[in-house]
Amino acid sequence: MNRIDLQLLRDTLLAALREDIGPGDITSRSTIPTGLRGVARIMAKQALTVSGLPIAGEVIRLVDRDCDFLVLVSDGTTVPDRSALAEIRGPACSLLTAERTLLNLLQRMSGIATLTRRYVDRVQGTKARIVDTRKTAPGLRALDKYAVTCGGGMNHRTGLFDGVLIKNNHLAFHVSPVDSIRAARSQLGHLVKIEIEVHHLDDLPNVIEAGADVVLLDNFTPDQTRQAVELAGGRVPLESSGGITLENVRQYAEAGVDYISIGALTHSVPAVDIHMRIAPE
Amino acid sequence: MNRIDLQLLRDTLLAALREDIGPGDITSRSTIPTGLRGVARIMAKQALTVSGLPIAGEVIRLVDRDCDFLVLVSDGTTVPDRSALAEIRGPACSLLTAERTLLNLLQRMSGIATLTRRYVDRVQGTKARIVDTRKTAPGLRALDKYAVTCGGGMNHRTGLFDGVLIKNNHLAFHVSPVDSIRAARSQLGHLVKIEIEVHHLDDLPNVIEAGADVVLLDNFTPDQTRQAVELAGGRVPLESSGGITLENVRQYAEAGVDYISIGALTHSVPAVDIHMRIAPE
Amino acid sequence: MNRIDLQLLRDTLLAALREDIGPGDITSRSTIPTGLRGVARIMAKQALTVSGLPIAGEVIRLVDRDCDFLVLVSDGTTVPDRSALAEIRGPACSLLTAERTLLNLLQRMSGIATLTRRYVDRVQGTKARIVDTRKTAPGLRALDKYAVTCGGGMNHRTGLFDGVLIKNNHLAFHVSPVDSIRAARSQLGHLVKIEIEVHHLDDLPNVIEAGADVVLLDNFTPDQTRQAVELAGGRVPLESSGGITLENVRQYAEAGVDYISIGALTHSVPAVDIHMRIAPE
Amino acid sequence: MNRIDLQLLRDTLLAALREDIGPGDITSRSTIPTGLRGVARIMAKQALTVSGLPIAGEVIRLVDRDCDFLVLVSDGTTVPDRSALAEIRGPACSLLTAERTLLNLLQRMSGIATLTRRYVDRVQGTKARIVDTRKTAPGLRALDKYAVTCGGGMNHRTGLFDGVLIKNNHLAFHVSPVDSIRAARSQLGHLVKIEIEVHHLDDLPNVIEAGADVVLLDNFTPDQTRQAVELAGGRVPLESSGGITLENVRQYAEAGVDYISIGALTHSVPAVDIHMRIAPE
Amino acid sequence: MNRIDLQLLRDTLLAALREDIGPGDITSRSTIPTGLRGVARIMAKQALTVSGLPIAGEVIRLVDRDCDFLVLVSDGTTVPDRSALAEIRGPACSLLTAERTLLNLLQRMSGIATLTRRYVDRVQGTKARIVDTRKTAPGLRALDKYAVTCGGGMNHRTGLFDGVLIKNNHLAFHVSPVDSIRAARSQLGHLVKIEIEVHHLDDLPNVIEAGADVVLLDNFTPDQTRQAVELAGGRVPLESSGGITLENVRQYAEAGVDYISIGALTHSVPAVDIHMRIAPE
Amino acid sequence: MNRIDLQLLRDTLLAALREDIGPGDITSRSTIPTGLRGVARIMAKQALTVSGLPIAGEVIRLVDRDCDFLVLVSDGTTVPDRSALAEIRGPACSLLTAERTLLNLLQRMSGIATLTRRYVDRVQGTKARIVDTRKTAPGLRALDKYAVTCGGGMNHRTGLFDGVLIKNNHLAFHVSPVDSIRAARSQLGHLVKIEIEVHHLDDLPNVIEAGADVVLLDNFTPDQTRQAVELAGGRVPLESSGGITLENVRQYAEAGVDYISIGALTHSVPAVDIHMRIAPE
Repeated sequence: MNRIDLQLLRDTLLAALREDIGPGDITSRSTIPTGLRGVARIMAKQALTVSGLPIAGEVIRLVDRDCDFLVLVSDGTTVPDRSALAEIRGPACSLLTAERTLLNLLQRMSGIATLTRRYVDRVQGTKARIVDTRKTAPGLRALDKYAVTCGGGMNHRTGLFDGVLIKNNHLAFHVSPVDSIRAARSQLGHLVKIEIEVHHLDDLPNVIEAGADVVLLDNFTPDQTRQAVELAGGRVPLESSGGITLENVRQYAEAGVDYISIGALTHSVPAVDIHMRIAPE
Repeated sequence: MNRIDLQLLRDTLLAALREDIGPGDITSRSTIPTGLRGVARIMAKQALTVSGLPIAGEVIRLVDRDCDFLVLVSDGTTVPDRSALAEIRGPACSLLTAERTLLNLLQRMSGIATLTRRYVDRVQGTKARIVDTRKTAPGLRALDKYAVTCGGGMNHRTGLFDGVLIKNNHLAFHVSPVDSIRAARSQLGHLVKIEIEVHHLDDLPNVIEAGADVVLLDNFTPDQTRQAVELAGGRVPLESSGGITLENVRQYAEAGVDYISIGALTHSVPAVDIHMRIAPE
Repeated sequence: MNRIDLQLLRDTLLAALREDIGPGDITSRSTIPTGLRGVARIMAKQALTVSGLPIAGEVIRLVDRDCDFLVLVSDGTTVPDRSALAEIRGPACSLLTAERTLLNLLQRMSGIATLTRRYVDRVQGTKARIVDTRKTAPGLRALDKYAVTCGGGMNHRTGLFDGVLIKNNHLAFHVSPVDSIRAARSQLGHLVKIEIEVHHLDDLPNVIEAGADVVLLDNFTPDQTRQAVELAGGRVPLESSGGITLENVRQYAEAGVDYISIGALTHSVPAVDIHMRIAPE
Repeated sequence: MNRIDLQLLRDTLLAALREDIGPGDITSRSTIPTGLRGVARIMAKQALTVSGLPIAGEVIRLVDRDCDFLVLVSDGTTVPDRSALAEIRGPACSLLTAERTLLNLLQRMSGIATLTRRYVDRVQGTKARIVDTRKTAPGLRALDKYAVTCGGGMNHRTGLFDGVLIKNNHLAFHVSPVDSIRAARSQLGHLVKIEIEVHHLDDLPNVIEAGADVVLLDNFTPDQTRQAVELAGGRVPLESSGGITLENVRQYAEAGVDYISIGALTHSVPAVDIHMRIAPE
Repeated sequence: MNRIDLQLLRDTLLAALREDIGPGDITSRSTIPTGLRGVARIMAKQALTVSGLPIAGEVIRLVDRDCDFLVLVSDGTTVPDRSALAEIRGPACSLLTAERTLLNLLQRMSGIATLTRRYVDRVQGTKARIVDTRKTAPGLRALDKYAVTCGGGMNHRTGLFDGVLIKNNHLAFHVSPVDSIRAARSQLGHLVKIEIEVHHLDDLPNVIEAGADVVLLDNFTPDQTRQAVELAGGRVPLESSGGITLENVRQYAEAGVDYISIGALTHSVPAVDIHMRIAPE
Repeated sequence: MNRIDLQLLRDTLLAALREDIGPGDITSRSTIPTGLRGVARIMAKQALTVSGLPIAGEVIRLVDRDCDFLVLVSDGTTVPDRSALAEIRGPACSLLTAERTLLNLLQRMSGIATLTRRYVDRVQGTKARIVDTRKTAPGLRALDKYAVTCGGGMNHRTGLFDGVLIKNNHLAFHVSPVDSIRAARSQLGHLVKIEIEVHHLDDLPNVIEAGADVVLLDNFTPDQTRQAVELAGGRVPLESSGGITLENVRQYAEAGVDYISIGALTHSVPAVDIHMRIAPE
């Protein structure tokens, strides 16, 4: 997350603040005297991999420029339970108003990073890379994908615009996978790669010959995956997808694929436990 | 979800479409001939409680007004595995482009409804209502809260603006909970209720006397909860919160509280499995 | 008006500036040499209650960050004719360009505060609070309601989303007021209060028994109001509304109601006279 | 108000709806069963000059396309008390949700038209035209100015961008009014007219000779105005401004000026009384 | 370009940055280590008239506030080949990301200024002013028109809202040009001038008598133009338009017209050659 | 241009309309009676390749839904002088108001298509494809790139986000081109190709070995280009860029490169001549 990214995320963060604050935080307004200052400590309440602290800093800045945000660990770090992640000093009312939006972002993003890190750790020592999918929370694609990299994962394409992936639903309109690859190739720019989904071992040689740049093995068992790796013989990178869990991910990695994509990294995120304790300064 | 709500959600849905489509769906553009029409069937691939079909209809309408969206079940219905949920007919390219955004919404919303329904079923026969929190995905507050109602849950306040909840972080700036309630009451409009969080049984009588409209029992055990219910003697509604799971929720309900709020309903949502199968019309 | 509120008002203020400045202030551009600096003094030209100075500061900041805005009195203060309210120093051209938008805001907001203050003064010594309505200038709800508080008034609900008020037009769809209250109660969250409008004394006991939290006496005479206060016997707060003027407001207050809502506070605002005199620095 | 204007006003109207509806109309949602239809009758409750009915139609369309809006009188018509202005048929919930925003617009716009009409009637038979100013409600410039024309008034420039008016605050930076006119003329395009404010009769001949296209007589008495008219001798149009009321406006008109501008038309608008009665269809 | 203009252009510049950067500059992100700083030198690679440096500064500021932008020449200056125009110091990644958007703006704007300057130089010594038209790149009206002034040209009206120009397509709905002028005059405010297009010498006297403020001679030859100038006898300013090139523009100027408008200034802009060389600081 | 693209372009087109129409088209409003209908014929006034008709249709629809837009030729067609391109029927005022924005778009887009077509025709019979660059008008990237395809050209990457192109300014931060490729490869997703710019023949073998997917020959002469083609021996596609004109483009194509990118296609567009003639229906 560099400054450019934060600037481009501004509308997303403002929308999140607006839906929570609306016409005003009536609890803080009515209970906290104007002028009081506070200090907020953001703490991990479980072991986790951190993601989203620069985002949290941007949120607090959007709420009130008079807050000082001190980051205590870097995104991507795995910290033990009870670690301090950041400290904010500023008007008490601003800290209280920003709290929930800020935590909602941090808990989701660190949840994604933490889950990704577990998958990445499971395949350690193999050449397989853990990659994400487009199954992100609507509106949070950029944040979700950034969180995956904090957990050591790799990003697949961002959206429909920066990579071709021909899936079953596209193939329904073609006589053969080979036919669809040819149609795509004739229309696409020279910096575009074509990945295609196959569901049977038999389709693999054809799509490789037709010029696929990457092949996705959809819902293959680890055994079928091993056969596919042999059949491909290193001519194209292979990606496993579908039905892969923390339990079986290493089997896929050991079968020799290059990439393993996991929808659950972003579509079924367990929030990690992060608290914010606010006190008078 | 009536028409007004859908109209007000338009920017949220457009943002979701834009982050996925960006400058264009290069796979569909390059593989699907213009003019081809298709039919998409949206199917549950597990038992689930449905939420989000009107939203899905709005998404497809934003992508292409020439699509016909046929809803087959109502939001809030619990359906068995392999149930057809909706059918869309229209230009094949539009169906393919809308697919992922539409499913990301449906899978998250139905995931929330399904999880909520499980909690609601657990407390059946008691007077306890399952309520949500503000721990929603940033930008998706309205959708997440609507999904909770589809699962039979009840909505807590929408945001910081439509209800007062005095929490620990506010109390840090006051000499006593009673003091904070008085400060709030003197400033607030006559349609505003005040809820306050207590952490010890001892605080309960004081806040009731100070005029709290609702009391939240934070991280009480079921036993402590039962004592609180007795102590309150029906003078104010009580809400349990913190550390409540599918395993222990019924104990809280049987302890006699009025409301049980569960952050996990929206902060740790397992997406349910919903597919979209597209074929030539 | 704290920083968070100002940040959330940014789009409203920019829209006001844009409709006035459009593609550029051709008078100032063509008559004022670049580089000239000026000082602007904002003066009350009549006795008034001030509202909107922080907003004015935000407007000038949006036009040009190089301006220094010095507030001389606090919002809510009642000042005599010829009082200096604020002083701005900066590029002459920026002062001239911002002048009208800034004054339009200040004159309306201080107009509302001044009018509110007159009503509040009239009921001094009684327990009645003067409250506003939703009859605000479209797009200016937040500013109008803030101005009411500067005049010593209290805000009713902000909009349709943060409080229930069942009015005649809703009752047309119900067999009785009691029926409508029951319908509402069964659907609403536990932090929501229900206010209902009654037009006849006879309806009062029923709606109180049905559980209304507040009752609005619509177009009651002071006499009828006194009877209603007796009949209610303190069981619910009462609000008077309709046909109330500076002339008769005290009669309503003395009849013993808790709240008196006045649409004219915001729907028929006489702008107060505030000038801005600009000179070379 | 033609279609183009309505399209360009869309953001203004949506902002007005959003600030009132926010996350939802909880009263209508909880009391009105889905599926019920209603009919709303918009009635004048006093004699008034109508303005804003096409805007009202656009508002209801933004809330719900399923509503039919039937206009019964044209904008600009003066109607007696108890006249029906429009009728809307559609889902009861949509009518109730749109009511307040729609009336706020209609009451303000018709208030402006009604007040303008009174001024216009007062000067009937003279050549003087009643014109508005830039003292409009922030964000509502286009609506306020349109309403003035419905009352028979004429629009002055729209904003700072479409006409030059050199005022006292500009003159503070020049050695003489003549100097400022020359500076402006040398920089401006050939379709731009220059109006300049004078405060003393003595300045009039000079600014006319310096090439002013229109001269504004600021805070002149009717007597001084008559002298100015003579002195100008028809060489430039003259505009009176400052301190003009319904009581003295005819004196200014009879003094022979061409235009009389009245800030109060838009800065101190008394809302007219318009009701909306909703009933089951 | 003063600060107000830059503020109002913010959305235009952000849209330009967003369409280029989208979800991120993957080249710079993947090749430039975080923390590296660089210095960028913006150089003219041909003789040109500069326009757009303040805009370039705003672009870099939108990308990263940590960049220092040093302007080396003023907008409107004509510089020789190999002149340094500006220098930027900041994070290397930010410089690389901003480069193309910044250059696209500078090259177009300086291209317009350079072309305008050539026309202006051609008519030197005559009274004719070179003016622009509304034939600008959609979305870039303000920038294109500002660039014209940097080249010594004068701006015609900004858009349809700040000046009347009755063209052939309007006349098709009137019995005569005179008729159209009368219709317009009766409706327009007193600061609005009326320009009308004539296609034949014969129409000139009529439109002058009907009160046109300016007359546009559409597609007249230089000879016809001379006759028109004589016929008008200084009663109204004349503008030549249509078919005017660098080759024949002086003939029109010498024919005695006041204004010569050239669509090509903004609709057929040859970008000038400007480079940005970036190196480690 | 399918429906999805038009929907996503809506904000761009509205911004273009808004900058021209602003608070209203005062010429048409004051000269054209309400209710008059007209027919507009859009005609080519020179031979040209058409681009932008669906966009024009969207513009007219945004101005007024009551207009019927009849396309007479398809985008991409090359038509002779005096060809009719489209016809619009609707309220006369709407046609007049939309005219300029619509023509500005059509003339630029068809200008790009026409220029592209000339380049494409020049290289006919060779394998070289003409491709565009990111040197587009700020805000119009999508329209400019679409217009290139209408002229038979191919699109390079859309922006910084959908393809890697390592240029001189990136190489300034690396010890060697090979080093930069390795840095990039280690960070990028598996669907991303890497193109790198070389300035000397000697660099070519190294970057090919380092794994560049495409090599851009920057400012090579045709002779050097021929040598590069031989040296590359078909291992990677080659792209020529810099200093290529209609005069020498065929020499580059015959030298055997795969792609020739031309900045002038979009940065120096001569608008083609297209008229709109409006008459009463």
